[in-house]
Amino acid sequence: MELLRLGAVGEERPYVRAADGTVHDLSPLTADIDGPFLAGDGIARTRAALAAGELPVAGAEGLRVGAPVARPGAVVCIGQNYAAHAAESGAEPPKQPIVFFKHPNTVVGPYDEVLVPRGSTRTDWEVELAVVIGKQARYVDTDEDALACIAGYAVSNDVSERAFQIEVSGGQWSKGKCCETFNPLGPALVPADEIEDVQNLRLKSWVNGEPRQDSTTQDMIFSVAALIRDLSQYMVLSPGDIVNTGTPEGVALSGRFPYLSPGDTMELEIEGLGRQKQSLGKA
Amino acid sequence: MELLRLGAVGEERPYVRAADGTVHDLSPLTADIDGPFLAGDGIARTRAALAAGELPVAGAEGLRVGAPVARPGAVVCIGQNYAAHAAESGAEPPKQPIVFFKHPNTVVGPYDEVLVPRGSTRTDWEVELAVVIGKQARYVDTDEDALACIAGYAVSNDVSERAFQIEVSGGQWSKGKCCETFNPLGPALVPADEIEDVQNLRLKSWVNGEPRQDSTTQDMIFSVAALIRDLSQYMVLSPGDIVNTGTPEGVALSGRFPYLSPGDTMELEIEGLGRQKQSLGKA
Repeated sequence: MELLRLGAVGEERPYVRAADGTVHDLSPLTADIDGPFLAGDGIARTRAALAAGELPVAGAEGLRVGAPVARPGAVVCIGQNYAAHAAESGAEPPKQPIVFFKHPNTVVGPYDEVLVPRGSTRTDWEVELAVVIGKQARYVDTDEDALACIAGYAVSNDVSERAFQIEVSGGQWSKGKCCETFNPLGPALVPADEIEDVQNLRLKSWVNGEPRQDSTTQDMIFSVAALIRDLSQYMVLSPGDIVNTGTPEGVALSGRFPYLSPGDTMELEIEGLGRQKQSLGKA
Repeated sequence: MELLRLGAVGEERPYVRAADGTVHDLSPLTADIDGPFLAGDGIARTRAALAAGELPVAGAEGLRVGAPVARPGAVVCIGQNYAAHAAESGAEPPKQPIVFFKHPNTVVGPYDEVLVPRGSTRTDWEVELAVVIGKQARYVDTDEDALACIAGYAVSNDVSERAFQIEVSGGQWSKGKCCETFNPLGPALVPADEIEDVQNLRLKSWVNGEPRQDSTTQDMIFSVAALIRDLSQYMVLSPGDIVNTGTPEGVALSGRFPYLSPGDTMELEIEGLGRQKQSLGKA
């Protein structure tokens, strides 16, 4: 089962894809897939309604795929959470999770155009496992309680402009992380309980069809559960929040690959969560 | 005229205080004071409705004062925007605005209790001029166009935990800026066109009645207009977003004053925008 939001920008409606591949209208259950829906046991209610045959099969062909969560309250990001990526960025592996934010209005659909910002010379890709929060996380002590706060997972592209992030930022990375269209999310929200081992998922990215990143979530320095525990000591995570859990090696910042230009194509894939594809345009 | 949100936490309703001090119910015009209301010319419509006598006088005595904007899409913060504060923090004045974020769920009312986080040793105050965005700001070229994107102003307390911000953060400040209750906002949203000169407002703070900060917005390194212009090159600012424009010298990080403890009281004031007061409690 996968939760989807389909429709034109700003007019997305909720759907669910059943295990047999059929797409069903989720609007009998909720107007949208958002924090209140997830907090109100939305995943379990979707599963029950689907099993009971209460959700009509939808004619969803040809509809644009939107981000699978509406209006995240925050997009919290973790930096340098894969040792090899920390090394290619010229940094030591962090001793504690490093936290920065993207503006939530960066979130777009998984096949939407990504815009190279005006004045950009160093636009870069980052495939990341996104955690979607389903239950408030506040001073969480155990891995078990941390994982219980997670509604599901999605593919996320933490698009970055390295000159903005590093050269004109006074060292605070968010300046290079917030340009419009800089967070393609989706195609789907996959319920947490349908992912057998979140610490054993392969992540890959390609630019113009050529491989770039190829790693697994086994290589995370801080596990998903450890990240949620740590974040919850420093902030309250609310239902509908997104946590981008860091990117593995193989980005342009390494010096091994050219930065992105208008006309290029990015593809990103995480095992069990689907595949994104974006063309680069010009802001 | 000032816009207010009054009522219990999560049940705030919109009000407006007229120039004569009377408080009027704003709910005939809008269900809440938020991005869509501000983007839909809400300030001008409030003024017109008030002048036309269409907003009934409200019995607002004794109601809790909430933050004057509901559900900000983002709380964007500017670091070290006053030269004397940069110096007391041990830094050179920045060459470009430094940007970080607070989680929007940190926003609370101006008289709500502020919680010292668990494990905190260095909780600090920061009086700041908050800009409330009323119109999308994207690649804005001129100061005039930047100022036209501003709905109004409010007092903001950018509460900070310095050990979280600096010692366990890997250098990314947001980790010490996002604890629950860490952004008292208000008491009111004052329309931008009712502030004669936003670069000539006195800002002050006190702890337990003793003076701490006392400066003016004349001392900003980057003016409000310059900040909005700069931010709009790196992100899209959306209606309802908050921009905390930096704090002047006189915080505990300087070493001149003790950090905050449960039982302490903070007061913050900005000329023309009103006064906040918070007691410190324990998370």
